Amino acid sequence: MPVLVMKFGGTSVANPDRIRRAAKRVGVEVAKGYDVIVIVSAMSGKTNELVGWVGETSPLYDAREYDAVVSSGENVTAGLMALTLQEMDIPARSWQGWQVPVKTTSAHSAARIVDIPPANIMAKFAEGMRVAVVAGFQGISPEGRITTLGRGGSDTTAVAFAAAMGAERCDIYTDVDGVYTTDPRISPKARKLDRIAYEEMLELASLGAKVLQTRSVELAMRFNVKLRVLSSFEEQSDDAGTLVCAEEEIMESKVVTGIAYSRDEAKMTLLSVADRPGIAAAIFGPLSEAGVNVDMIIQNISEEGRTDMTFSCPTEQVSRAENALKKAIEAGQIDYSNLVADTDVAKISAVGIGMRSQSGVAAQMFRTLSDEGINIKVIATSEIKISVLIDRKYMELAVQALHDAFDLDKAG
Amino acid sequence: MPVLVMKFGGTSVANPDRIRRAAKRVGVEVAKGYDVIVIVSAMSGKTNELVGWVGETSPLYDAREYDAVVSSGENVTAGLMALTLQEMDIPARSWQGWQVPVKTTSAHSAARIVDIPPANIMAKFAEGMRVAVVAGFQGISPEGRITTLGRGGSDTTAVAFAAAMGAERCDIYTDVDGVYTTDPRISPKARKLDRIAYEEMLELASLGAKVLQTRSVELAMRFNVKLRVLSSFEEQSDDAGTLVCAEEEIMESKVVTGIAYSRDEAKMTLLSVADRPGIAAAIFGPLSEAGVNVDMIIQNISEEGRTDMTFSCPTEQVSRAENALKKAIEAGQIDYSNLVADTDVAKISAVGIGMRSQSGVAAQMFRTLSDEGINIKVIATSEIKISVLIDRKYMELAVQALHDAFDLDKAG
Repeated sequence: MPVLVMKFGGTSVANPDRIRRAAKRVGVEVAKGYDVIVIVSAMSGKTNELVGWVGETSPLYDAREYDAVVSSGENVTAGLMALTLQEMDIPARSWQGWQVPVKTTSAHSAARIVDIPPANIMAKFAEGMRVAVVAGFQGISPEGRITTLGRGGSDTTAVAFAAAMGAERCDIYTDVDGVYTTDPRISPKARKLDRIAYEEMLELASLGAKVLQTRSVELAMRFNVKLRVLSSFEEQSDDAGTLVCAEEEIMESKVVTGIAYSRDEAKMTLLSVADRPGIAAAIFGPLSEAGVNVDMIIQNISEEGRTDMTFSCPTEQVSRAENALKKAIEAGQIDYSNLVADTDVAKISAVGIGMRSQSGVAAQMFRTLSDEGINIKVIATSEIKISVLIDRKYMELAVQALHDAFDLDKAG
Repeated sequence: MPVLVMKFGGTSVANPDRIRRAAKRVGVEVAKGYDVIVIVSAMSGKTNELVGWVGETSPLYDAREYDAVVSSGENVTAGLMALTLQEMDIPARSWQGWQVPVKTTSAHSAARIVDIPPANIMAKFAEGMRVAVVAGFQGISPEGRITTLGRGGSDTTAVAFAAAMGAERCDIYTDVDGVYTTDPRISPKARKLDRIAYEEMLELASLGAKVLQTRSVELAMRFNVKLRVLSSFEEQSDDAGTLVCAEEEIMESKVVTGIAYSRDEAKMTLLSVADRPGIAAAIFGPLSEAGVNVDMIIQNISEEGRTDMTFSCPTEQVSRAENALKKAIEAGQIDYSNLVADTDVAKISAVGIGMRSQSGVAAQMFRTLSDEGINIKVIATSEIKISVLIDRKYMELAVQALHDAFDLDKAG
């Protein structure tokens, strides 16, 4: 029988009632003839409670013990989901990560899945079991210790199972009904997309459209797993939600697919840096070592032998970046006149695979912002994305104007 | 280094603060030179929460899934305890049942420990680890599924580890500071015992003195594991609490060691049963099949060819017992004129190894009760115990009078 993977997030399994609702969705797919692998998160709030206890116990915790503690929430929902399905007369059992086994690296709290041997679960399907409920987010290291994949790891578990078991599709049930052209809270004209390409979803996910975890989309792209995002709180038809798939499976795509934004960006500028070969490495090496996630980088010539260097990073990392740069200047590695941090900025991005073959997108974006009187502070582009930093107070206005300019409220 | 097992119950690990307090006790023993195996229960209340969810989900649940769910509470406290010890610079790690492995039977929710191979933990001790924190109450079946040992199973886990690892002693930390001559809430003269024999503890445990789980005492007796019961909420000296040990290690013991009581006993009498060989089996066979825990049994001859049969069982099982007996009469297996249930009784027991060699204990017990005007309804005796059923309203009075009569408030 064909295999389907269905993943339910924390709000979808928050209590026995919600689990029952999710189980009914599973029952619909079983009735269609699928053998189903259900991946569950912990009840919403439970993982935070466990993380809180670990933090209270040990600020600099042993990640192996952290993993042993926080993985327990998924074990609870996996067992409860299996029981609920059994109550519906659907043959089901739960599996914890080590039982499958979900083999991972030893990088505790941020482990990567290495292998999921399908034999155990497939043997049970052959015996008549219809649903394997698997605790998401967890695995087992080569040393036999419990690992976790990092926050949001259950999406990754789901995609990895879909790849390992040759599933027809991986359905991610969540509290939104799909991927939108932009955040509906900011633009009421936001429209749900029927399909989106992996590459576009990746840009949107990493830009703060928090529907899917970036790693899960990468994995889906690598193994060509069809991902569907849909709501566990609505009655669903066969084509509900948004399908994340290969570019070739999207017939007509617009030049721009969506407008993303990120509120917590800071712009930092090093003024009058002594310019010499290797200066960029001298600046960004220490930042990287300090764990600062540098996003955009711009370099301007300001005067003879001096240059201005601008970069963006998450607002919460500004003081970390400042410390790293101060140390570098004390160590004589770099020389600059001043460091200016602007934490009142936001990043707006237009994303679309169609940009590759169509010129003029950047120009239209800049003109739209200019027409609204919004000043652009930094520009960065990739093959399928144009990002700008602007004053944060214009963020909503920019998103709405660009959404209109690229006709995103209209289908097709 | 000598090995010590320390077990902390749910109230002793109820939150990170309590866990820290327990860890300090562990630190004291480590400083003395012990390699310590710590067995932890779930935070108090957590197991009940999990059991509640299972019941809400599936009234007739699959015990394998029940075990997978309810075992998760101990995993949390095991990890948190290991982290707390690490914070104190004590090399420690946690082990879940399947990691040790704690091999059990497949009798889910009531599994018995079959084997605990000491090699894995001993190898870590040899490498310098000082504390192995093990999740109590759980194990792994031959099929690789998670099992649990039944409520209170963490005591059994602790004793089994002490036996498997050749521990010098097994300390059970709980919310009382030892075993008393009787319940201090009923008799303010109740005195803490320094030592008690396994056999006496078994009678007291099964009679409702809820300090230790019966199975754990049986296991300790079989493998001659010294058990110490003490409070996790008080500063402890080396001879704190009560030591449960072999009879030979108790120098001078009194004839009677303690007075136990059980409030939830019912007395059932079958009047005028047609007497014939095999009639007892015809009555108690169906009761046993119905899961009724029959305790005392008394048979009186009432008239030619007829007999009265009296037995006691837990009050909550009275209707189950009545149903089983009704079915037996309908099936023609037994014949009696009437069934009388008296649910207003209590059982009082005097327990003491010294009874074996000393006569007159029963006579003194009956005289004491008679002096107080308390009528005895049923009497049953074993080698080291005399039990009587009396009206429940006299329960407290009987306990106090017997405690005085046998001089239990005085040491030695």
